[in-house]
Amino acid sequence: MSLHGEYDNQNIFAQIIRGEAPCYKLYEDEDVLAFLDVFPQSFGHTLVIPKRSAARTILEIDSDSLSKVMAVVQKLTGVIVDELEPAGVQVAQFNGAPAGQTVFHIHMHIVPRYAGETLSVHAGGKATPEELAALQARLLKRIAG
Amino acid sequence: MSLHGEYDNQNIFAQIIRGEAPCYKLYEDEDVLAFLDVFPQSFGHTLVIPKRSAARTILEIDSDSLSKVMAVVQKLTGVIVDELEPAGVQVAQFNGAPAGQTVFHIHMHIVPRYAGETLSVHAGGKATPEELAALQARLLKRIAG
Repeated sequence: MSLHGEYDNQNIFAQIIRGEAPCYKLYEDEDVLAFLDVFPQSFGHTLVIPKRSAARTILEIDSDSLSKVMAVVQKLTGVIVDELEPAGVQVAQFNGAPAGQTVFHIHMHIVPRYAGETLSVHAGGKATPEELAALQARLLKRIAG
Repeated sequence: MSLHGEYDNQNIFAQIIRGEAPCYKLYEDEDVLAFLDVFPQSFGHTLVIPKRSAARTILEIDSDSLSKVMAVVQKLTGVIVDELEPAGVQVAQFNGAPAGQTVFHIHMHIVPRYAGETLSVHAGGKATPEELAALQARLLKRIAG
């Protein structure tokens, strides 16, 4: 799929926003939703998406929605650093399939990096429901403070 | 260098902001500066940084500065797509050396991806001044519209 095209209302993130598909939710408000990536590149890999903007890429999102998404990225990066103590964190956003985009609803990746670990190939393996639920519980507890 | 530490006023981006080191500037306002990466991962690799925030990482930047940086990232991604016609674009921000951060002033990368090309290893090779000046001229012309 190229950089330009029609927004598909049936993409998996649109389904998650509408509550038609499940997710391991970490945060939600009127504008932004955050949840665990079920094909994590590393332990704690989190996605943050706008709820009100039917944007495929950064070229299409309105700047107010982008600001709100980034504020949540910032907050959750702090939570992940505090709770999981990675050596570093990559924040990334891919536009177009040749750049690694697989779901065409704009999303920010938060990918913790751990010393001595290489990154998994994206979508290389699916985490188990048990792993994801346990991680979700840890992070929600940290968010609750 | 870890996720936590002191901001070093002598880092290269701080020098560029103060005008003590040169850059191939694409955009500047009171809050944000954008310029070409001299060790490009791909043709058109651009960096966007806050000018007023002495932040090493996303954990330290104030949210207003982050919003302003992202608005410029969005604008320049559009300029790069229009002018250089990549197949995709990666937007990325690295926190901590284990995540790939090499300069400890927060910066967003805009990395165009071209069909059939793999990404260069970051900092793998320095672009020539002639290449950078020619690219800067193309993008500035596009920005001027």
